Amino acid sequence: MKNAFYAQSGGVTSVINVSAYGVIKKVRALDNSSKIFVGNNGIVGLLEDEIFDLDKTKKSLELLKELPGGAFGSCRYKLPEITETDFYEVLFKKLDKKNIRYFFYNGGNDSADTCLKISLAGKRLGYDLNAIAIPKTIDNDLVLTDNCPGFGSVAKYVATSSKEASLDIKSMCKTSTKVFIFEVMGRHAGWIAASSELANNEQSTFVHKILLPEVPFDEYAFLSGVENDIAKYGYSVIVASEGLKNQDGSLFSNSGEKDAFGHIQLGGLAPKLANLLSNSLKVKYHWSVSDYLQRSARHISSKVDFDHALAVGEHAADLAFSGETGVMPIIKRTNSNPYKWEIKKGMLQDIANKEKTLPDSYISEDGFRISESGVNYLKPLIQGEIFPKFKNGVPSYDQLDLHLC
Amino acid sequence: MKNAFYAQSGGVTSVINVSAYGVIKKVRALDNSSKIFVGNNGIVGLLEDEIFDLDKTKKSLELLKELPGGAFGSCRYKLPEITETDFYEVLFKKLDKKNIRYFFYNGGNDSADTCLKISLAGKRLGYDLNAIAIPKTIDNDLVLTDNCPGFGSVAKYVATSSKEASLDIKSMCKTSTKVFIFEVMGRHAGWIAASSELANNEQSTFVHKILLPEVPFDEYAFLSGVENDIAKYGYSVIVASEGLKNQDGSLFSNSGEKDAFGHIQLGGLAPKLANLLSNSLKVKYHWSVSDYLQRSARHISSKVDFDHALAVGEHAADLAFSGETGVMPIIKRTNSNPYKWEIKKGMLQDIANKEKTLPDSYISEDGFRISESGVNYLKPLIQGEIFPKFKNGVPSYDQLDLHLC
Repeated sequence: MKNAFYAQSGGVTSVINVSAYGVIKKVRALDNSSKIFVGNNGIVGLLEDEIFDLDKTKKSLELLKELPGGAFGSCRYKLPEITETDFYEVLFKKLDKKNIRYFFYNGGNDSADTCLKISLAGKRLGYDLNAIAIPKTIDNDLVLTDNCPGFGSVAKYVATSSKEASLDIKSMCKTSTKVFIFEVMGRHAGWIAASSELANNEQSTFVHKILLPEVPFDEYAFLSGVENDIAKYGYSVIVASEGLKNQDGSLFSNSGEKDAFGHIQLGGLAPKLANLLSNSLKVKYHWSVSDYLQRSARHISSKVDFDHALAVGEHAADLAFSGETGVMPIIKRTNSNPYKWEIKKGMLQDIANKEKTLPDSYISEDGFRISESGVNYLKPLIQGEIFPKFKNGVPSYDQLDLHLC
Repeated sequence: MKNAFYAQSGGVTSVINVSAYGVIKKVRALDNSSKIFVGNNGIVGLLEDEIFDLDKTKKSLELLKELPGGAFGSCRYKLPEITETDFYEVLFKKLDKKNIRYFFYNGGNDSADTCLKISLAGKRLGYDLNAIAIPKTIDNDLVLTDNCPGFGSVAKYVATSSKEASLDIKSMCKTSTKVFIFEVMGRHAGWIAASSELANNEQSTFVHKILLPEVPFDEYAFLSGVENDIAKYGYSVIVASEGLKNQDGSLFSNSGEKDAFGHIQLGGLAPKLANLLSNSLKVKYHWSVSDYLQRSARHISSKVDFDHALAVGEHAADLAFSGETGVMPIIKRTNSNPYKWEIKKGMLQDIANKEKTLPDSYISEDGFRISESGVNYLKPLIQGEIFPKFKNGVPSYDQLDLHLC
């Protein structure tokens, strides 16, 4: 009897639990004698002997398909180099005690690194283990895979919210607000901000300016561009990536200013941009920072994203049971319109700690919008709705009963 | 042939256009010889001769039922006192030119004031006019009416988003973020922040602290309360009203600090609270400001709120055609569980420029949560879903074709 371990890592998404559902159901289908153990808060649960025994869970695993966040808790934790033999001996002793031979780690680039280290350390120590990473990140910055489960849902949220807020400011601009700034996530890559372009269509422009980490901030071009928007439309909607950078490469949002008590001013990008616009153009503004709201918004998840998340979970089990290790199921697009995709296999050594940013060809010439090829890439990822059940006016989001071993 | 004028005013909502649909359809049903004129950007359209002729609109009015924001544009504009005879003579000449005898103004307290002035000025000038205000405000602060169309949908958005973000931080708190601050609208009344209590249920607490304008900020009680939440749950979710006040009555968010260039620092409440928590408790935080996103989120509007918005629109037409003036259709609750309501009539002189804040009985003893009677009041208003149609992955939100007279 070979058992399985699954854990979640890094920032969570609205569909990471769908991947959990996929891998758990598939492992049980492939070998129903395998027990499935789950780390409480990722790899930390393994290290601290906080491991859930899923056999003890009474509620239906179907709940995972509607639950945002990490159902089992996540972590930000970097493993030591594999030359730290003492550390890995302890870790593998813990795995061995439960006869864990399948190891699934659900996360982004850092988590791919964790999984790769476990795989390599296992080989070094002669421990028979199939370590498979399952892709997940709203940042969409993993290499090799066409896109990352979690991203499509954020993209759908951002495109929808941008369109809604744009209709709002359009109503108000005659006598009041003329600029709306919407700050979204994305420290190093602008995929999320870029997805706001999907709010636009042939008839109407809802988003006028998109600020990407890939395009150094040109204050003059930005201000005159917004001025033109206001002249043309009466208002301007700006979607900005939190990772926007100055010309010298420093973070735009990192003001370094201190308040009266000497504390660093934690302003954020949106209020800083608002301040700039207010002082330069003398216009009334509103701004929004969606932060966790965007990545947990299961109520408006993308069906395509949901399908991806399920498929990578299921394929991870297949890969482990076919003897693979140090790999990750990746999404390969075979056609954009209509969208077709399949799951392939990527090597973790080619994925771990690498980052995919927006290619130049996806960015418009002026740097403030997304090109047609960028739209063609993004559009399929937000298609379809898969609303959760509601109870008492809010999504039910019932949680599993979890029991430690 | 007596014609009708309709216009939208003040901050818009996700269902204000449903009221527009209600009044327009009902006027046509009551007298299909009546023409319906609509102000472009509220009363400003009337004053500037920018008036839409709805007979020229080709697209279906059904689109109004799914479109957030103000379909005809809104405004913030205060009319002069009715003793300013010159002003009102010009205004009524404009109405008379189009033989407008039914006047509908869709807005909040300021708009009720506008409508009351028009009604009184009409009487003074001997102009036969039925001026009816139609309630709308996400702030839920109109007196007499049980609740205000627009509020229930924001409440549903805030309760849903709070629950989602809480599941997110719950996953992250072991090794990372321990505090999440969600800033919502509400300058003077805490109804919107209060609605986050609806995220909670008997099994789980998703929102731990609610900061209301009605409860002066007690820094010590707040900090020790959040510290307790972190000790008990591992994290704390705080929903804060933008109108939170200090003990001396000043706005908490109004820092008055200036940046290096002497510009007023536009920090916002959420980052300021985050700063306070970070400095005092030394914990990692995240914060969100949903701003326009919350009030334009038609994708998660409340069905009950939608029904209210439709009903007040229809009843406004009934009131006008039955000879009333200076009144507003109001919602009267006849039962909370199951929720039952009917439409009654309120006098604008009792409504204009007044404000309803949260009663003490709706606030928990410690001032940081909502009481059972508060929940009983709020809960019915977020019930039911009425999703818009989606196209290409985002809500369609098709706009009407509008044509000036």
